[in-house]
Amino acid sequence: MEEKLVKDGERVDDLQCKGLRLIQNPKGFCFGVDAVLLSNFCEVRKGWRVIDLGTGTGIIPILLAGKTNAKEIFGVEIQEEVAEMAFRSVQLNQLEGRVHIIHEDLNKIMEQLEPYSFDAVTSNPPYMNEGGGLLNPDSMKAISRHEVKCTLEDVIRTAAKLLKDRGHFYMVHRPHRLVDIIDLCRQYKLEPKRLRFVHPNKNKKPNILLIEGVKHGRPELKFMDPLYVYNEDGSYTDEIHEIYGREQVIDEEVR
Amino acid sequence: MEEKLVKDGERVDDLQCKGLRLIQNPKGFCFGVDAVLLSNFCEVRKGWRVIDLGTGTGIIPILLAGKTNAKEIFGVEIQEEVAEMAFRSVQLNQLEGRVHIIHEDLNKIMEQLEPYSFDAVTSNPPYMNEGGGLLNPDSMKAISRHEVKCTLEDVIRTAAKLLKDRGHFYMVHRPHRLVDIIDLCRQYKLEPKRLRFVHPNKNKKPNILLIEGVKHGRPELKFMDPLYVYNEDGSYTDEIHEIYGREQVIDEEVR
Repeated sequence: MEEKLVKDGERVDDLQCKGLRLIQNPKGFCFGVDAVLLSNFCEVRKGWRVIDLGTGTGIIPILLAGKTNAKEIFGVEIQEEVAEMAFRSVQLNQLEGRVHIIHEDLNKIMEQLEPYSFDAVTSNPPYMNEGGGLLNPDSMKAISRHEVKCTLEDVIRTAAKLLKDRGHFYMVHRPHRLVDIIDLCRQYKLEPKRLRFVHPNKNKKPNILLIEGVKHGRPELKFMDPLYVYNEDGSYTDEIHEIYGREQVIDEEVR
Repeated sequence: MEEKLVKDGERVDDLQCKGLRLIQNPKGFCFGVDAVLLSNFCEVRKGWRVIDLGTGTGIIPILLAGKTNAKEIFGVEIQEEVAEMAFRSVQLNQLEGRVHIIHEDLNKIMEQLEPYSFDAVTSNPPYMNEGGGLLNPDSMKAISRHEVKCTLEDVIRTAAKLLKDRGHFYMVHRPHRLVDIIDLCRQYKLEPKRLRFVHPNKNKKPNILLIEGVKHGRPELKFMDPLYVYNEDGSYTDEIHEIYGREQVIDEEVR
């Protein structure tokens, strides 16, 4: 079956989690540490309906299918070629019964999904402001990295529409956007409740943030202990090993 | 002269900075690590007019007078007895020419100060929401610790009125209020530009935050490297020693 599902130029990566595998195109945007950290940060309960906005290769829905007892997990991806690859990864893992990939612009997703119908929304959205950073000449990478097709506000507004009252919003992003993130979460009534900073090592400032918002939640933010990726000798910390499994190679992007 | 300035039951502490000293009443709210960290976090330039909102014992204006070339530093304190003690500390350090203590409610301070006339505003405001935490039965301590007489919004709104365009707002606060802080800073156009978290040690989440906002600043938040108070063996870190001077005892509150 694998032969049919994997195309020329693509590779299959072992996700080090219950035998799950993922199809990626090394020329496109490959998943990084952010998606793995977000999947680990989420607290998804049995029977939940979950949706991942801007799912890319489908890494987050597939990891959540393996790690949690969520009933159904949707992934929305605007790029047809990428969505189609994510769907093949779902097939490769025989997860068609629980994981659904939707090829759609998340700004149009409310045309086909019921509002207030999800228990959790996850997102690892493009990090760069439009105009911030050099646009990647390869448009597939550009769409994954820059806010070309969706802004931070699009993600947060859509999450707020999809979530049930008291539903959970989980996002991974960059610390320099913290002010915008908090401002928009408040604006769309996704009260920030839990925040975790990820630092390259103990002596460096954070370069990744993980945030949980609760729809119509009571204001009170809890900080988690910082997560460090590397020890002082350059080896991975125990916590990273636990999250990743011992063999997994971490995207260099975090360093 | 000292005998005249210090009353029964008060003590004089050496601030370990250019011979500066501070009168405190051990039965009242004594300055802690927060005020020292905030004074260190501020970047005050030569000739600036600075004002500290909720100055308490006057620790921040007195430290800034010692550390910087600010032209004038005001301190506003609502509690008459505390403001009067702060004024005696100013006299003790012969800083009457540069440091001015105003006994006033900060919500009424605009009646006597020119709007848009300060280069920097500092504040180490009460941390507890009204209703959050047990009210201290000693009302002098309660006013210093709880938002009895002024809320976070009062501080930020007043700071915004006092600052010149592009003026700097420096505040020390608690991480669990980060969402409110960011939300209010945006609302009053004090764009958060710099954020530093202070952790008890490298394995613990932050328990103090330092934030700089710039009036009408362009959105872009910079994180600073984390500041750790204790090494793993329980001794102070080198950075804390640098900030405090080798002999200073740190308020236990931070642990």
